[in-house]
Amino acid sequence: MVDEVAKDLMTQISTPASHSRNKLTVVGNGQVGMACAFACLSQKVADEIVLIDSFQDKVQGETLDLQQGVAFSPSVKVLGGSDYSLTKDSKVCIITAGARQQVGESRLDLMTKNVQIFQKIIPEIVKYSPDVIILVVTNPVDILSYITWKLSGLPHHRVIGAGTNLDTARFKQLVSAKFGINIQLVNMWVLGEHGDSSVPVYSSLRVGDVSLVGCKKSDCGEFKQWEEVYEAVRISAYEIIKLKGYTSWAIGLSCSDICKSIFHNTNNAHALSTLAKGLYGIADEVYISLPCIVGQNGITHVINLPLTESEKSALHDSASKLYNLQQELHV
Amino acid sequence: MVDEVAKDLMTQISTPASHSRNKLTVVGNGQVGMACAFACLSQKVADEIVLIDSFQDKVQGETLDLQQGVAFSPSVKVLGGSDYSLTKDSKVCIITAGARQQVGESRLDLMTKNVQIFQKIIPEIVKYSPDVIILVVTNPVDILSYITWKLSGLPHHRVIGAGTNLDTARFKQLVSAKFGINIQLVNMWVLGEHGDSSVPVYSSLRVGDVSLVGCKKSDCGEFKQWEEVYEAVRISAYEIIKLKGYTSWAIGLSCSDICKSIFHNTNNAHALSTLAKGLYGIADEVYISLPCIVGQNGITHVINLPLTESEKSALHDSASKLYNLQQELHV
Amino acid sequence: MVDEVAKDLMTQISTPASHSRNKLTVVGNGQVGMACAFACLSQKVADEIVLIDSFQDKVQGETLDLQQGVAFSPSVKVLGGSDYSLTKDSKVCIITAGARQQVGESRLDLMTKNVQIFQKIIPEIVKYSPDVIILVVTNPVDILSYITWKLSGLPHHRVIGAGTNLDTARFKQLVSAKFGINIQLVNMWVLGEHGDSSVPVYSSLRVGDVSLVGCKKSDCGEFKQWEEVYEAVRISAYEIIKLKGYTSWAIGLSCSDICKSIFHNTNNAHALSTLAKGLYGIADEVYISLPCIVGQNGITHVINLPLTESEKSALHDSASKLYNLQQELHV
Amino acid sequence: MVDEVAKDLMTQISTPASHSRNKLTVVGNGQVGMACAFACLSQKVADEIVLIDSFQDKVQGETLDLQQGVAFSPSVKVLGGSDYSLTKDSKVCIITAGARQQVGESRLDLMTKNVQIFQKIIPEIVKYSPDVIILVVTNPVDILSYITWKLSGLPHHRVIGAGTNLDTARFKQLVSAKFGINIQLVNMWVLGEHGDSSVPVYSSLRVGDVSLVGCKKSDCGEFKQWEEVYEAVRISAYEIIKLKGYTSWAIGLSCSDICKSIFHNTNNAHALSTLAKGLYGIADEVYISLPCIVGQNGITHVINLPLTESEKSALHDSASKLYNLQQELHV
Repeated sequence: MVDEVAKDLMTQISTPASHSRNKLTVVGNGQVGMACAFACLSQKVADEIVLIDSFQDKVQGETLDLQQGVAFSPSVKVLGGSDYSLTKDSKVCIITAGARQQVGESRLDLMTKNVQIFQKIIPEIVKYSPDVIILVVTNPVDILSYITWKLSGLPHHRVIGAGTNLDTARFKQLVSAKFGINIQLVNMWVLGEHGDSSVPVYSSLRVGDVSLVGCKKSDCGEFKQWEEVYEAVRISAYEIIKLKGYTSWAIGLSCSDICKSIFHNTNNAHALSTLAKGLYGIADEVYISLPCIVGQNGITHVINLPLTESEKSALHDSASKLYNLQQELHV
Repeated sequence: MVDEVAKDLMTQISTPASHSRNKLTVVGNGQVGMACAFACLSQKVADEIVLIDSFQDKVQGETLDLQQGVAFSPSVKVLGGSDYSLTKDSKVCIITAGARQQVGESRLDLMTKNVQIFQKIIPEIVKYSPDVIILVVTNPVDILSYITWKLSGLPHHRVIGAGTNLDTARFKQLVSAKFGINIQLVNMWVLGEHGDSSVPVYSSLRVGDVSLVGCKKSDCGEFKQWEEVYEAVRISAYEIIKLKGYTSWAIGLSCSDICKSIFHNTNNAHALSTLAKGLYGIADEVYISLPCIVGQNGITHVINLPLTESEKSALHDSASKLYNLQQELHV
Repeated sequence: MVDEVAKDLMTQISTPASHSRNKLTVVGNGQVGMACAFACLSQKVADEIVLIDSFQDKVQGETLDLQQGVAFSPSVKVLGGSDYSLTKDSKVCIITAGARQQVGESRLDLMTKNVQIFQKIIPEIVKYSPDVIILVVTNPVDILSYITWKLSGLPHHRVIGAGTNLDTARFKQLVSAKFGINIQLVNMWVLGEHGDSSVPVYSSLRVGDVSLVGCKKSDCGEFKQWEEVYEAVRISAYEIIKLKGYTSWAIGLSCSDICKSIFHNTNNAHALSTLAKGLYGIADEVYISLPCIVGQNGITHVINLPLTESEKSALHDSASKLYNLQQELHV
Repeated sequence: MVDEVAKDLMTQISTPASHSRNKLTVVGNGQVGMACAFACLSQKVADEIVLIDSFQDKVQGETLDLQQGVAFSPSVKVLGGSDYSLTKDSKVCIITAGARQQVGESRLDLMTKNVQIFQKIIPEIVKYSPDVIILVVTNPVDILSYITWKLSGLPHHRVIGAGTNLDTARFKQLVSAKFGINIQLVNMWVLGEHGDSSVPVYSSLRVGDVSLVGCKKSDCGEFKQWEEVYEAVRISAYEIIKLKGYTSWAIGLSCSDICKSIFHNTNNAHALSTLAKGLYGIADEVYISLPCIVGQNGITHVINLPLTESEKSALHDSASKLYNLQQELHV
């Protein structure tokens, strides 16, 4: 009956677009996936958002909840379901799907399980959106980004892992709060594995544009205090999980920020998991976080930060660790 | 040691402000409270957000998670804890705290329990922010808004219930999706109780500025189809709770929208629970949703919608139902 | 030398995009064109903006000035020049170029002169951006939109005139200011010619969702006061030109608003000059403002407002006036 | 009659706020003042904007033009006139008023004339907004910021000159465009006089977080190429004035950016003209641009950049030049 009413109310002049150009898909509707979708919706980063999850009740519930919020963010469309045809022509796809570690389950078992899940998801995404840029968030993010690259057949600059973008932000936030200044006044990079072997690049640390390492006065460059900050960063995910059961908001905003650079072609820099072979002296075919410049085609450049010898060596160790893990998977 | 470093890095010229002017407090850090806080953070509605919850682990975890996201929304500050002194000089306070209904528990028992919770919260809020505007979200929202007004001693235009702002949005969203048009092209009010006795004001329904009730062609005003939409609205919270366990995103965006009108003094209209005595022919001292105009001082006007007789009578029934519930509480 | 430095600083991973997807061209860099460009830049409506003007000094100066502002709106790129190849693959093109009326020059002479200017511009635009949507702003906007449609060979839903979108906004603004309420609470349409024969559709006037025409109380529907508002709207452009020499800000924001609906596919409604043949009982092939729904493909629907007889007749008169003007042009 | 209609349409519940909390005044409605006002309006930096100019026609025309645009930026209010009582309780006041240099007029004569103009403006501003932060834009901005401080009686952290915030942005923009990267990836400070003696702090120049001065490879730190960039910055205002007659957009966005830091208490850094006595080894009571951290109380800190000897000496020369100019004024 709506059709009849619509005919009276409006005269059609041309066919409406089947979907918006700035279209985003989020696969996996757990706390992380929904925080990503909600951040992108409320910050109007994408014009159309598709939720995908294999649990039909969950995806239907989350879709309804987001759709009802659209009244207050009125230029974004929301769709959702279990059918990948909904994702057609997405420009970006965030993957947050995956199993959680069970008690008694080894990390390798978990990885193997998640690889199997990705073997179902990735071909479906690429089938409906051959030009998509995939942003992997599921942990272990470096391994799964590598797997996604292999499964997708996409060029590596279009398969990205959320990596240490958030670790970098955490470090900056702690320092900016200590000094009572805006976080934009703190510069820092955390690179390498998004995990225990991540590499804090102290030589890039600056507050208010003043380098803090090597500065003479007041021992401001004394490593000990910055190592304490890094330690707080390193354990912060564990800490939040212990306190509230999971992490969500910061990773959601981190992914919204990366999506902004892609959708709006900003050529901004993020610490992202990318194919590191041939960069920073890394010889293995491994995904690991490096400082990447991102535009609407994905990663266009990797910045060549001048690392100290110990930073370089820590990065190589992190790469080797991930490469060895990869090898165990036999993919 | 930071202090010493800071002294070298920066020369202090004046005392930084103790807090931002556009300061928001969110009491209760469950799914609803956090969706409110996250929406206000990511849409930059407030410049400073304080989370308050009696569960210390929870509030600490949520605070850390939001703070780490601030790197990507860099003009908002986030604090949190169990100590109400953190809330000092808030301009708006959203209350989402409260018990959930237990199996076998009567609604009256639940209400009594939540009244007891509010007896602890409200005086603390008013003590630290005597000029605050309180936005109540906890259900039953109409009763608890009334209770909050009584407990706070604030003028009634500064105690507001989230009411049917969301029901109104839900109705509009369903209609706009049916017609494939922007939700801003759909006008509608759902008033009365935020609950089963809510009142769809069909006489205010317009699509693309064309009134749908009473219009001749194609029976576009036939009540049946709009009653189906309203029924979908009425059950939608139940539906989403059945599907995903709770509602969060839409109520978060709804509250962010109301906060925007207050913080930025927009004089925009929302369907909010307010003291209805003397309005729309309602004689009782009862809180119920009416179309309110809101600015930085709270509610300044109630719009006098020309209701049909049956709409008016449904509104009076809704008011009576709420008044009777209130009486049972003996507050 | 930059290239060499760049090679050291960054390793290229893939070819950066030649231009952003949300690309806007503004032809004509007078006060109106620049207000359009600046509004779109500062509101981040487009991700890339190209200025085009035949006066090389002017376009170079304006381009430099905007580019330097990009530091403070850092996700937008700005280019400019006299060479239309810069405009390649624009999604939207705003045309503000044209001659101003000289003393002693007849309106027909002016129109003829502007038609000649458009004969140079439009083919260049379409040549480089065959899928563009053209938004005509130069006056007389209805005639020049029609001419642009003819010259471009584009389907008519992709050739739009800024029309009475601004007249409609002016009416709403005056009423909202009178009542001290947000402009979103005022509904109104001004249709027909963007000029002296524009048609105020009083039957669509509502304040706070209450229809003002035909309402009984206090004679709120008395035409006289609304006619005074319309008169203020009708003369307001003349008034502003008398006071400051030209109009700019409001038309800039109006065009930014229309562009938002196109770039972000919002399906929102605007009063736009469109091919009216077959609509509202208009038989002639004439461009005139009607309430249009707009998405990324241009106009998708025209809303069928239920006009009163006198409103319908005024609209027909306005259409006839424009049709007769068109005929004089012999195009 | 509106009052009667309003009474029917709406029931007043409380007194609307007389003005919004985030209130901005812009004195001087030339190209610069209007670009400031328009940038703040379209970016929603303030919730209420008051235009002040002594030319009544001009201020009326600009006010009308901006007000009509409010329909498309619907949470900002605009007022304007020649009466300073309109500015009551402004949080920020931007001063762009002043005479332009006439042919044959000496710089000293011009300064003297502008001092006389400021003697009328500043006391009026402070009278109606004793807690205001004044942002001076009129040139010579360093001298006039000093004069404003003296005339206002305000603490010096609440009297700010727009200074080299724009010069700094110009430098960054040129470099980011050369490298094809986002401007946020370029760090640089231009300090000192906003004028010919400004000081490019090459030692703070970094691209993608890599310091460019002193880096070994490819002579990327070779001064010559950066000196060419600085030269382009230094002459860019002259260049734009030659090409289009005046500068407007970039200074408007620069001031909007500074206002954002104040209104939203972001504690971000800007190169601003401030009282330099006792900072960076400057002994004289002189206003000059230094890297300042700004919040809702004005400047809270000056960052102590580690300058090279030649940078320090250039800064001292710039300060001396300004101090000598100040002395000529005999104020």
